[in-house]
Amino acid sequence: MDIQNYLPFWDKLSTGQKSVLTENSNARKIAKDTVIHNGNLDCTGLIIVRSGRLRAFITSEEGREITLYRLFDSDMCLFSASCMLHSISFEVTITAETDSDVIIIPTEVYRKLMEESAPVANFTNELMASRFSDVMWLMEQVMWKSLDKRLAAFLLEESEVEDTHTLKTTHETIANHLGSSREVITRMLRYFQSECLVKLSRGTVTLTDISGLQRIVRD
Amino acid sequence: MDIQNYLPFWDKLSTGQKSVLTENSNARKIAKDTVIHNGNLDCTGLIIVRSGRLRAFITSEEGREITLYRLFDSDMCLFSASCMLHSISFEVTITAETDSDVIIIPTEVYRKLMEESAPVANFTNELMASRFSDVMWLMEQVMWKSLDKRLAAFLLEESEVEDTHTLKTTHETIANHLGSSREVITRMLRYFQSECLVKLSRGTVTLTDISGLQRIVRD
Repeated sequence: MDIQNYLPFWDKLSTGQKSVLTENSNARKIAKDTVIHNGNLDCTGLIIVRSGRLRAFITSEEGREITLYRLFDSDMCLFSASCMLHSISFEVTITAETDSDVIIIPTEVYRKLMEESAPVANFTNELMASRFSDVMWLMEQVMWKSLDKRLAAFLLEESEVEDTHTLKTTHETIANHLGSSREVITRMLRYFQSECLVKLSRGTVTLTDISGLQRIVRD
Repeated sequence: MDIQNYLPFWDKLSTGQKSVLTENSNARKIAKDTVIHNGNLDCTGLIIVRSGRLRAFITSEEGREITLYRLFDSDMCLFSASCMLHSISFEVTITAETDSDVIIIPTEVYRKLMEESAPVANFTNELMASRFSDVMWLMEQVMWKSLDKRLAAFLLEESEVEDTHTLKTTHETIANHLGSSREVITRMLRYFQSECLVKLSRGTVTLTDISGLQRIVRD
């Protein structure tokens, strides 16, 4: 396993700590759409993404979702080990958006390391600060940007992530990403279509005017 | 100065670290309405509230505000030292809501301590996790609770904090707390008044039906 490549604090660990980490961490393949972590029900452990894509989201009582952030190659998921931090009182669900290769460090192993080692604790701090910043960005979007800007930004981002102008997605899925409802998204997508920004067909949204969408995000 | 009473990691510091902390931290009195920390312009340091009340909020480009959390006696403010964490990319403003007594630990002193000491780094982790949870709660409110619930919850909370049923506040101030506009808040308060939940007069909102307001929050 190549765990050392993903951990910036590796060189600051003792030989004993390195072998505890290596011996207890597990490489695993996760199939697309698998729920890896489900709020406080699981204490999965720290997840390192070797390849693939994970999505972290929260869910309302009525079942509406909003995407908090995505994790790509080399990213590390802290909230799958949130039981490690007493002060975390929210529940995040994590799913694989594509087939993914991950390494899982068991919670107990990581917690012990963090207690012993200031570099590990400080790395964890930066990791949390970085997710916190993602969530603050999202909150500002939700609070202060109108849905047309958020939808345009989302389509452009998806197009970049998937490396295609034709997104295979449903209006329901988009609504779940943006914390909106299917009806509202369908209405806005139809408006975009009427402005020749996208073309809609069954199960796909095709971006037809990238700079037009960028203008909506910007203005 | 009584700094040791506020720092759970005090007993785990060396004698040298203790004296660096004591010698470099400053007690300060902050007058009501003073801006203590203004986003990335300042790197004020860690603020410990000995008594009083601080408010942390973010501001939109158009000048709208939303309260992220409040800090009371013995609370510690991490984001006034956010320059310490490279991964923080959002800007928080902190003001004193009442005359307050605080202790300020300079950023450089705290950063050095955190680098050396796992207990300090782990305490910082829990502190951030706790603020993160506040913000996630707020985000769920904003996303999924309607404004009537949020306004009722806010009035009840204020009433408890101020220990009175008669709140001296403007509709503008309430709007700033909730990330809304004055017009929207005025409309909702008038609706509450028509339901005999509150009584409005110039510069005050009086809560007249506490259990009615609680019912709105709950249902």
